[in-house]
Amino acid sequence: MSKLYYGAAYYDEYMPYERLDQDITMMRRAGMNVVRIGESTWSTFEPQEGVFDFSHLDHVIEAFGGAGIDVILGTPTYAIPTWMVASYPDVLATTRNGRGIYGPRQIMDITNKAYLFYAERAIRKMMEHCLPYSNVIGVQIDNETKAYGTAGHNVQQGFLKYLREKFGQDLDALNHEFGLDYWSNRINSWEDFPDVRGTINASLGAEFEKYQRSLVTDFFRWQRQIIEEYLRPDQFITHNTDFNWKGYSYGINGDTDAYANAQQLTIVGTDIYHPSQDALTGMEIAFGGDVTRSLKKANYFVLETEAQGFPEWLPFDGQLRLQAYSHLASGANLVEYWHWHSLHNAIETYWKGVLSQDFKENDTYRAASVVGNEWQRIGDHLVNLKKHNHVAILVSNEALTALNWFPIDGMRSSYHYNDVLMEVYRALYELGIECDFLWPQNAAEEMGQYALVLIPALYAASEELLLAIDRYVREGGHVFSTFKTAFANEHVKVYSDETPHILSKAFGVAYSHFTVPQNVGLSAGGSLAKRPNPQAAGEAEITASHFMELLEPLDEDAEVLLRYDHPSWGRYAAAVHHPYGIGEATYLGCGVSGGLLEEIISYALEHAGLSPARDLLPSSRAVKIRRGTNDYGKEIIYCLNYSGQEVSVRSLLNRPAKELLSGKTVAAGETI
Amino acid sequence: MSKLYYGAAYYDEYMPYERLDQDITMMRRAGMNVVRIGESTWSTFEPQEGVFDFSHLDHVIEAFGGAGIDVILGTPTYAIPTWMVASYPDVLATTRNGRGIYGPRQIMDITNKAYLFYAERAIRKMMEHCLPYSNVIGVQIDNETKAYGTAGHNVQQGFLKYLREKFGQDLDALNHEFGLDYWSNRINSWEDFPDVRGTINASLGAEFEKYQRSLVTDFFRWQRQIIEEYLRPDQFITHNTDFNWKGYSYGINGDTDAYANAQQLTIVGTDIYHPSQDALTGMEIAFGGDVTRSLKKANYFVLETEAQGFPEWLPFDGQLRLQAYSHLASGANLVEYWHWHSLHNAIETYWKGVLSQDFKENDTYRAASVVGNEWQRIGDHLVNLKKHNHVAILVSNEALTALNWFPIDGMRSSYHYNDVLMEVYRALYELGIECDFLWPQNAAEEMGQYALVLIPALYAASEELLLAIDRYVREGGHVFSTFKTAFANEHVKVYSDETPHILSKAFGVAYSHFTVPQNVGLSAGGSLAKRPNPQAAGEAEITASHFMELLEPLDEDAEVLLRYDHPSWGRYAAAVHHPYGIGEATYLGCGVSGGLLEEIISYALEHAGLSPARDLLPSSRAVKIRRGTNDYGKEIIYCLNYSGQEVSVRSLLNRPAKELLSGKTVAAGETI
Amino acid sequence: MSKLYYGAAYYDEYMPYERLDQDITMMRRAGMNVVRIGESTWSTFEPQEGVFDFSHLDHVIEAFGGAGIDVILGTPTYAIPTWMVASYPDVLATTRNGRGIYGPRQIMDITNKAYLFYAERAIRKMMEHCLPYSNVIGVQIDNETKAYGTAGHNVQQGFLKYLREKFGQDLDALNHEFGLDYWSNRINSWEDFPDVRGTINASLGAEFEKYQRSLVTDFFRWQRQIIEEYLRPDQFITHNTDFNWKGYSYGINGDTDAYANAQQLTIVGTDIYHPSQDALTGMEIAFGGDVTRSLKKANYFVLETEAQGFPEWLPFDGQLRLQAYSHLASGANLVEYWHWHSLHNAIETYWKGVLSQDFKENDTYRAASVVGNEWQRIGDHLVNLKKHNHVAILVSNEALTALNWFPIDGMRSSYHYNDVLMEVYRALYELGIECDFLWPQNAAEEMGQYALVLIPALYAASEELLLAIDRYVREGGHVFSTFKTAFANEHVKVYSDETPHILSKAFGVAYSHFTVPQNVGLSAGGSLAKRPNPQAAGEAEITASHFMELLEPLDEDAEVLLRYDHPSWGRYAAAVHHPYGIGEATYLGCGVSGGLLEEIISYALEHAGLSPARDLLPSSRAVKIRRGTNDYGKEIIYCLNYSGQEVSVRSLLNRPAKELLSGKTVAAGETI
Repeated sequence: MSKLYYGAAYYDEYMPYERLDQDITMMRRAGMNVVRIGESTWSTFEPQEGVFDFSHLDHVIEAFGGAGIDVILGTPTYAIPTWMVASYPDVLATTRNGRGIYGPRQIMDITNKAYLFYAERAIRKMMEHCLPYSNVIGVQIDNETKAYGTAGHNVQQGFLKYLREKFGQDLDALNHEFGLDYWSNRINSWEDFPDVRGTINASLGAEFEKYQRSLVTDFFRWQRQIIEEYLRPDQFITHNTDFNWKGYSYGINGDTDAYANAQQLTIVGTDIYHPSQDALTGMEIAFGGDVTRSLKKANYFVLETEAQGFPEWLPFDGQLRLQAYSHLASGANLVEYWHWHSLHNAIETYWKGVLSQDFKENDTYRAASVVGNEWQRIGDHLVNLKKHNHVAILVSNEALTALNWFPIDGMRSSYHYNDVLMEVYRALYELGIECDFLWPQNAAEEMGQYALVLIPALYAASEELLLAIDRYVREGGHVFSTFKTAFANEHVKVYSDETPHILSKAFGVAYSHFTVPQNVGLSAGGSLAKRPNPQAAGEAEITASHFMELLEPLDEDAEVLLRYDHPSWGRYAAAVHHPYGIGEATYLGCGVSGGLLEEIISYALEHAGLSPARDLLPSSRAVKIRRGTNDYGKEIIYCLNYSGQEVSVRSLLNRPAKELLSGKTVAAGETI
Repeated sequence: MSKLYYGAAYYDEYMPYERLDQDITMMRRAGMNVVRIGESTWSTFEPQEGVFDFSHLDHVIEAFGGAGIDVILGTPTYAIPTWMVASYPDVLATTRNGRGIYGPRQIMDITNKAYLFYAERAIRKMMEHCLPYSNVIGVQIDNETKAYGTAGHNVQQGFLKYLREKFGQDLDALNHEFGLDYWSNRINSWEDFPDVRGTINASLGAEFEKYQRSLVTDFFRWQRQIIEEYLRPDQFITHNTDFNWKGYSYGINGDTDAYANAQQLTIVGTDIYHPSQDALTGMEIAFGGDVTRSLKKANYFVLETEAQGFPEWLPFDGQLRLQAYSHLASGANLVEYWHWHSLHNAIETYWKGVLSQDFKENDTYRAASVVGNEWQRIGDHLVNLKKHNHVAILVSNEALTALNWFPIDGMRSSYHYNDVLMEVYRALYELGIECDFLWPQNAAEEMGQYALVLIPALYAASEELLLAIDRYVREGGHVFSTFKTAFANEHVKVYSDETPHILSKAFGVAYSHFTVPQNVGLSAGGSLAKRPNPQAAGEAEITASHFMELLEPLDEDAEVLLRYDHPSWGRYAAAVHHPYGIGEATYLGCGVSGGLLEEIISYALEHAGLSPARDLLPSSRAVKIRRGTNDYGKEIIYCLNYSGQEVSVRSLLNRPAKELLSGKTVAAGETI
Repeated sequence: MSKLYYGAAYYDEYMPYERLDQDITMMRRAGMNVVRIGESTWSTFEPQEGVFDFSHLDHVIEAFGGAGIDVILGTPTYAIPTWMVASYPDVLATTRNGRGIYGPRQIMDITNKAYLFYAERAIRKMMEHCLPYSNVIGVQIDNETKAYGTAGHNVQQGFLKYLREKFGQDLDALNHEFGLDYWSNRINSWEDFPDVRGTINASLGAEFEKYQRSLVTDFFRWQRQIIEEYLRPDQFITHNTDFNWKGYSYGINGDTDAYANAQQLTIVGTDIYHPSQDALTGMEIAFGGDVTRSLKKANYFVLETEAQGFPEWLPFDGQLRLQAYSHLASGANLVEYWHWHSLHNAIETYWKGVLSQDFKENDTYRAASVVGNEWQRIGDHLVNLKKHNHVAILVSNEALTALNWFPIDGMRSSYHYNDVLMEVYRALYELGIECDFLWPQNAAEEMGQYALVLIPALYAASEELLLAIDRYVREGGHVFSTFKTAFANEHVKVYSDETPHILSKAFGVAYSHFTVPQNVGLSAGGSLAKRPNPQAAGEAEITASHFMELLEPLDEDAEVLLRYDHPSWGRYAAAVHHPYGIGEATYLGCGVSGGLLEEIISYALEHAGLSPARDLLPSSRAVKIRRGTNDYGKEIIYCLNYSGQEVSVRSLLNRPAKELLSGKTVAAGETI
């Protein structure tokens, strides 16, 4: 990649009138150099089965080519035409709620053979027709692909065969591992296998969800192999994996195995939608970028992010530019808005693009033009940013899924895996520490590259993974883990020896009891009490929240960092630090406030020999400093001000620096 | 109509024991002169298909006739007998939730031919048998008729034919107008038409809802034509259209086209249920009455309203009488309680009538007796009240439906078309300005009769209607409009030139951006700032709420009445007043408090040369003054005190007035 | 019963590894002497239809026998095997939501003949095989049995036949009694009977629910008769009836007729789950025990209660022991935890047993050991506690069901029968008054044994029952009743004469109006005002809540205890005391605070000649005193301290007492 890409999704098919030339003129003026097309328009280019009409695509690709704008071509498979459903109603997925009704996107059974037949033909025709264009730089597979809950008969048959193979035909092994004797759920003959949609067995249910995720990866592999038959060497395959959705991107997406999928792609892409206006902190952008970059340890594409987005996200003055640089600061090489123009029909007219429905120049367009033109000017310094992080967070779909079955705070069910993950990430982000991410698939191999690995709520994990963590610490690594780690195995079977199973040794703790705290205080002990700010500055009282484990230190080396303050539970620890082999581990047994979590993670960072850089001192906590190395081998430092006010940053760098945007030099010790 | 009607719905069929004579005696003593019967009792008078037994109806009509009490006869078609469903299960409507189960009323497919066959026979038999009675004064068609979400195969086939005809067989035109390319929803062959219940396309979905409303009008026409074969010239046809329901009548009902239906009726009727006790303000009664009166610009019937109603509506001392006169003040010629006695079985035993289940004289009965006897005495002065209003509100089912698809406040979805409508109506009501209502069907023709037309959130409107508004202002009319007007056409396709499309010229504004306000202040400018009370007296701070458009005045004549107070949006206007041709328009771009809305509407009223009458000065704002002219050509003034306290009203009339109830004369300048 | 039983449910089938010997050792050490087995494990002992393998049961029963631990054997019928559903999908109940999907327990149609065929064979095999073991002391029928909403075709056919018989084939009688004319629901031919799942008729709906409850009783009878063929004279039949569930046991369970079922059992058992930690008051334990003891006026089993339970119930230090004695204080002869070990799979891993998943000795196990060993030592003094109560509460499934159809507080639907019941029970509990329970089935016969009968919201009751209450008061009994009593008959048909129908005479009141109070005060009158604490100490203001009836005293003897304080309703009474015959009745017409309710019930107690014992004076209200007589004829007094603090109790007993736990003697007048 030799340049930064900047652009938007473009839908000629949806235009109320012909205006491609005007749009291209506006895009060029805004410094845009890439569009994504084609991914939602199957019924337009194949209006009847077997009848293909690529005139829209030709028209658009050629016109953009003439204007020097590159094109990413999306396969259209996530939204199926009416004629397919009219002829083959079974292409609609049967889920827990029965078979769907045509209308929404992403409602098909991605394993249905009629669907796959039509999809393959459409992809082949599209690739054959469009990939030869020189300005088509790559292909996006599908769009935010998941299994959409598909659980019809054919899918359940596939799952049955998967289980048979997994357990070597041994039903007793399956019954024992999944605990199916409970409530008489035992399966004593494969013919008796019940409809898995009704299961109350978390092991069986979570395994089915894992199987559904594997269907998505199979689907990616299948599309990749088709596309590769047509792909030029200079063309890439990408995909826009989305995150868990809470009105905006929040935490990892448990419905798809982003790590496995990424291995099918040339360049990993993502969608990042984040709160804006007063709620813009940069955290969601940084999180999304750090996760996506880590999937293949490489620069990545932000294939969708908001220009205006939801009405409540209309950017304040300066925010669109700030957001664009925030993406780069995590290592993005492409930022594309969804979408260029705002739609005039259907369901998403409320979701505004760069242009509103009036197609007029507006504040958002003007803000984008500033970005686009700056990137034309200095993009070569910003592209291909390399990160050198010493901290990693280990995330797990298996843990996330299992904690959906068994919510951390029990009946309240208001505190999820992604909440723990985001609290841990937020603490790092606030401390100014950048990080990578690890997955169960690569953790064993790659943990060793990091000085500290943070483990949020790794509820379900194989012994193999736990042994790797044990080994990592023993051999000198540092680990910080929250509660609910190492409780169950990869099949969501709770470990039946000490808790947290194998990791008891590394963490130096075990526990037999846990509860939901009500008026349970925390008091800092050990070396945490000696830190300048043990009481989490500004927080009058520190209490346990959401969930608490009654930790018992296992040996004298275990240093109690926090203890419960409670008539019955004062004898138990809430957080323990423990040397193990030549490494160290810190274990936190309860939910705590953000401030206290920062304290504890700071403590773990210090013990791992890491500390926030103090070479740039912003006058406000809302300024975030992020770094990397560019293609010229220079360090790039982003000072991102999310405060809405003017702030100063004092440089204590031991060298002068250059302000890339202004071209000015900043001397060591100078304040900007 | 030569007298006021006062009475209740009466169900001899539901009585736990024979008591018709006692009830008639009680009714006569209470001054009641009308009952509604028959509308819920099909299974009683046709116990088996083809077997008719009108003994209950005969018994009741004759007995009431003997007592000088008139009868309105309801066709029984909204609640179907068990035998019909047992033989023809398909008469139950198939909706988004599948086919219903027998039990509730209003669950049939009103287009089902088996249903229509039985309904026609039952209506004919009933009319033939009962209309000859001299005290049967009219017929009510069905009850609160809607389409009940009917969307089965036959209904969808009808819709398909409707669309084919509408678009002259031209699928391309349909695809383009509805924007079906989006998410691959394009329909390239009529055979491919998908199940419309699943659509995510608001244009298609809203058109289907319009089609469903047209089925209701067809149903009215069909019943009317049958009934007319039996009707005497002195007998009327009516119907009780209900309002949108929010625990009480609130705003217009988007499920039925009240304007079109009204054209099938001799006299328009309605159901008005309103909060009571501490929450009785009279506003809901006035609103319901003003809407109903405007449907045919004539006096109307309140066919149902509460006596006791929900337990929480048990009237305080004096409230039942106040409510009855409130109905008259909008022009009602009939007030009937639902219902005479409280039910002993089924689902509505909690909904209390005039009598409780004990059939004893009670507070409510005694209060009704006061009303009935007063009306016997002075009813000839009160009947046929004529209104002479200079202000009208334009309401639209199309806008309401479209804003259900696209809630004004986006994801929160807590602020609807009817909220905007009721805020506008409340402002007028509080200002003491009475009004009529207009619909898209008659607005072009009738706007010219009004000095000021108020337009709440006319989100979806045809160019024809918008041009009529433009012409109205240009030629000297005055318009006040809220945000979200003229955004999309009648097919919910967003206009793609300037916003608010054609009306930009009249309003003198355009905008490209809108958002949901958080901490966005408003500051009054222009002549609004010079008014005595620009800060909406009593409200410490004025802010934008729910939704805001970033308005740009288009010319120098545009006077900015409100400006946003915000770091990013201070350069945009929130409300603008604009002379256009020889008329003037006022546009409000954001949600505001009730007090500020009153200020702005006062401003528009003043510019239209209107102002609240100051000839009667109540000592409390809770007293509402309403007026009209009676059959004797006299002005009738209602002074309605909703405060619960005694209040005085000072007369500044330039003539003495007569207190109709007491018979006393009130001199000009006197305080009562 | 000659000893106290103490133990837990035990599932050898679910164990992750063989550990029976270790568990037995731990149990014996903890003083446990009973386990419940077998009730959830059908698919383990009948892995394929007709193939039986009792090795787990044999192994377990023999091993426990060898250790002197007794066994209660549960029939496995509440959780069906996969093979049954694979062959006979119809065994899954069809409910309002359609047919279920296999997975959960308690999803079968308990009347399905395939299910019953397999269930009978499995029970016979199990009984034949296991009952001969000498340490099998009894059988538990099924588990928390209900009808699970079963409403398929066969069930509805049964209901139809039940109605035909009930009404002697007379459809007119049925239509009249149920009020089916309403909304045209009339059934004029049995063939027309509609699907009862859709009915909006509360009479029909509630009758169907009663029929569903009768299916449960039929099911009990059927199992009992099978089991009795194999039962030794020394073996009992029991069952664990559960309570209404609100996150814990709360009020009576409207889904089953506990009174009728109890007649099928040798010893009544129950499940009691209660809040713990800061929320442990003992009330739920006392309530559950008092209800269960009253079912057959005999000692009972607590077949399930929590050891750790939900995470938020982990007992504080001392609470497990306190809970165990609380059960005994109501007359329990057995306390069994659900369950011994915490599960490693499926859906209830969060529900912790005595042991956690690590099987280690923990706080809960140690606390249980204290209890078990104490009971080994002094259990013979505690077993077979006899109660001598003078107060009873009359509860009714019919009233509960009817008030689900017609919530007391109307549209809010937040105040239910069980809320009224628990408020009344709580008042007694706080006043230190113990009570029994009565049901409509035995009230007439047994009321006479009590000085005071409390009647919460007996909304639906037969005239027979109301006449019995009338007679009881007239002949010298005392009754306290809340609002909503005697409103409808046993078929939920509202009585059509004065309200509260027959009881107007006893209560000395009638009313025609009721409403939901908003800012309605209450003022104490009559002799209530003269009591030391009329204002319900500590409550600044007393107001009516939830619901209020406008009571009119019927004669001069009626003493108004509370009057409404309101502009419209000040003329009505809120509570009335009335002498009737040689008895007295107190009627409360509105919701009141807990403090005021205690005042009024105290008042009724005094008039009934009852008062809280003053012979033991605890220093805190959180200490509850409960009593009975043991097998030695000695009075046993439990002083249960729920406060979490040390408290003293001063003895004013006229004799010395012995502290059973310490063996110390407490002199009269001494403080402990």
